[in-house]
Amino acid sequence: MRMRWMAVSFVVAGIAISSGVANAAEVSGKWVAEITGPTLLEPAYARVSLERAGDSLSGTWGTSTVKGSVKGSSVSLTVSDAEGREVGAMTGKMARDTVDGSGTLAGLGRRPGGFAAANRPPMPVEMSFKLTRELVPPAKPREINYEPTTFQSYYYAGNKPGIHIFPGDIVHTWAPDSAGTDKNLKRVALGGNANIGPIYVEGALPGDTLMVHLIKIAPNRPTARQGSRIQQFGVTPAYNLAAKYDPAFNGEYQLDNATGIAVLSHPTEALKNFKVTMKPMLGCISVAPQGFEAFTGPHLGPYGGNLDYNGTVSGTTMFFPVFHPGALFGFGDGHAAMADGEVTQTGLETSMAVDFSVEVIKGYQTQQVREEDNDYIISFGVAGSLQEALKVSTAQLATWIKHDYGLTDSEVALFLGVEMKYEVTELVDPEFNVVSKVPKSALAMLIPPPKK
Amino acid sequence: MRMRWMAVSFVVAGIAISSGVANAAEVSGKWVAEITGPTLLEPAYARVSLERAGDSLSGTWGTSTVKGSVKGSSVSLTVSDAEGREVGAMTGKMARDTVDGSGTLAGLGRRPGGFAAANRPPMPVEMSFKLTRELVPPAKPREINYEPTTFQSYYYAGNKPGIHIFPGDIVHTWAPDSAGTDKNLKRVALGGNANIGPIYVEGALPGDTLMVHLIKIAPNRPTARQGSRIQQFGVTPAYNLAAKYDPAFNGEYQLDNATGIAVLSHPTEALKNFKVTMKPMLGCISVAPQGFEAFTGPHLGPYGGNLDYNGTVSGTTMFFPVFHPGALFGFGDGHAAMADGEVTQTGLETSMAVDFSVEVIKGYQTQQVREEDNDYIISFGVAGSLQEALKVSTAQLATWIKHDYGLTDSEVALFLGVEMKYEVTELVDPEFNVVSKVPKSALAMLIPPPKK
Repeated sequence: MRMRWMAVSFVVAGIAISSGVANAAEVSGKWVAEITGPTLLEPAYARVSLERAGDSLSGTWGTSTVKGSVKGSSVSLTVSDAEGREVGAMTGKMARDTVDGSGTLAGLGRRPGGFAAANRPPMPVEMSFKLTRELVPPAKPREINYEPTTFQSYYYAGNKPGIHIFPGDIVHTWAPDSAGTDKNLKRVALGGNANIGPIYVEGALPGDTLMVHLIKIAPNRPTARQGSRIQQFGVTPAYNLAAKYDPAFNGEYQLDNATGIAVLSHPTEALKNFKVTMKPMLGCISVAPQGFEAFTGPHLGPYGGNLDYNGTVSGTTMFFPVFHPGALFGFGDGHAAMADGEVTQTGLETSMAVDFSVEVIKGYQTQQVREEDNDYIISFGVAGSLQEALKVSTAQLATWIKHDYGLTDSEVALFLGVEMKYEVTELVDPEFNVVSKVPKSALAMLIPPPKK
Repeated sequence: MRMRWMAVSFVVAGIAISSGVANAAEVSGKWVAEITGPTLLEPAYARVSLERAGDSLSGTWGTSTVKGSVKGSSVSLTVSDAEGREVGAMTGKMARDTVDGSGTLAGLGRRPGGFAAANRPPMPVEMSFKLTRELVPPAKPREINYEPTTFQSYYYAGNKPGIHIFPGDIVHTWAPDSAGTDKNLKRVALGGNANIGPIYVEGALPGDTLMVHLIKIAPNRPTARQGSRIQQFGVTPAYNLAAKYDPAFNGEYQLDNATGIAVLSHPTEALKNFKVTMKPMLGCISVAPQGFEAFTGPHLGPYGGNLDYNGTVSGTTMFFPVFHPGALFGFGDGHAAMADGEVTQTGLETSMAVDFSVEVIKGYQTQQVREEDNDYIISFGVAGSLQEALKVSTAQLATWIKHDYGLTDSEVALFLGVEMKYEVTELVDPEFNVVSKVPKSALAMLIPPPKK
């Protein structure tokens, strides 16, 4: 699914046009094409740039070249690939800020750009398109106070956005805890890791990467709750069979943002001096998953979700693959602190005040979620077992370093074999999450090959 | 197997004795009993202490009580359990520093002490025994320069010891690299992780724990070698299928103990500035495994072996379950540095100078390997998958904290849920190793219950 959408950015189309009514003077500019057709399960998208000179048009469609002409409100376009082969032809009709049309385009549906690799000729197929103007971000990023009123119980592209923001906007907001309760312990959402929003990021398209700067994550209420049983994936059955867990054990904490310390509200004698150094994190952080997939709050995947990484803290930057226009970002499930693996099936669960901003990396899609902090680049790997999660995480990290630093496969292997660290992040949910990371100090020693 | 041996320490025996020839005046003292019999697959052991007053004897057999009498060289013993029930009766004949005899003893073979739990009566079974005097360590610990000439290709109790040492001795020695080559790159052992020794630790018996203080681990030659392919358990098959590994890639390093830095001997352009901070470790460290089990060098288990933990460095203390008299300790497979998981199936492989000393914790057996460094207590978990290794590691850590700090199961769970860290230690060998650990600073906040 992802593959096909990525392909759209690289794909090439030809547009040949019928006649029209109105003035197409404003056809110049930047557009977003939504592409539908009988070979597509869901829309595809491309960035389109057009420039008019007299009655002639030139520009780009994704990474391809467009030539065309204008007559009244009618536009005709032909799109060519890097080898100069015609890969599409369309006609359209312009209204004020849209162009609707149809024609043919290669690279859609079952053969997403595969002709290029196999050196097969382009095979344009029937399609319709609608161009809408690319929105221009405000000259100065805005400060937005977002009071969420919509919460997602499913990670799902069908959720109606709670707010639209632009890259650069600084958003001040909050998220309920995993039980759906807010700073006043009032239930505002269903339990089970509801995420706020979704937040629609203007300009994000499938095939892009959403960068999220987590400026601040801090509890916005003075209490948290933690479980006091080890979950079955975290310990042997024999251990849990023998354990005498106290059903009345009270795992409530008092949180102090000023000192950064949490203590049990009603400690047992043994835990009277027990102080937890808070490291507030978001357990869930997500974009909408691929296609029509829908997952409840406890799930995790390439779209993020219930990743439960205790390194998702203030000051970090995360990267998500964009699968849908607007990315449909959200988060929730705050923890004031949490050990590796979330072995009690909880951290110190609490609601969070969150400040963040986003950027969009256009035309490059991360495979799964990534993160950077001051010291490390960090690759998430989510799969159905620890082993497969680890493999996926390593593969993404290796590919990332290869891509960004131009190392050979042997160099990457040697580098990871001496520098990589693993963290077991999420153990207790329907999928597993293993993080691999390498220090930026080690990356700084690499010499990228000269640019060609 | 381990269970049965542990049981011996707790078990109780009665000894009724025949007449003898020589003087049994010296029967007073500390002895080790080697117990054989038709219900035992292999010998069991107990510490025995006897005191003579006139013709009467009193003392202990394991954790039980002994009464008896002496006549000439003949000794007769009756052993009782904590409830005062007779659980064994034996007679023996004393020579200068041995007592040989036979009789009956409960808790051997198929019903190792099980009667206690089920409140069944003791069921003594036929046995023979030999008491030998417990060796007394030298008054002052010795400094020993051990030049190893025997190397174990198998972890196996049948290996003949290369040296006998006492707890407290400080041993200066070295170990070849995983390929069996020494400081002069001379092959002294088979490849595949040969361990030196085994080293017989006087006084260590099955049911004990061997404590190993790793005083110094430092490369004793100026070169190391590292692999440059990611092993199949560390990355997706798709990644490795696509990777173009260079079979001529040169992973040799120059090691500098003075600066603690390793650099490639023949770096590629991209890696010209690449410096590795050395953290010399032992990949293999072991005692003999249970019973008649034998495993080649790449294996790992509760006995240690190819644990490949990059935290097994100078200054750490390790704990091994003792399965055989003398423990039969050994090590090898030095790495000047290694990332988590040993994903290139190697660290920076080199031979090592090693200084160490040992202690024996009598009558308490760790489940699997453990370690302590300045900051953490560390639990190893070895099993056939990452998931099971992690569960075993957590279970041991939880049991350890419960035992040493007297926490309830709920308290342990809450504590681990906020303080535990996991490390993926060994990925690429026949078994997997996951380490769990908690900071000593957090343990220091716990209040153990008052001693009863």
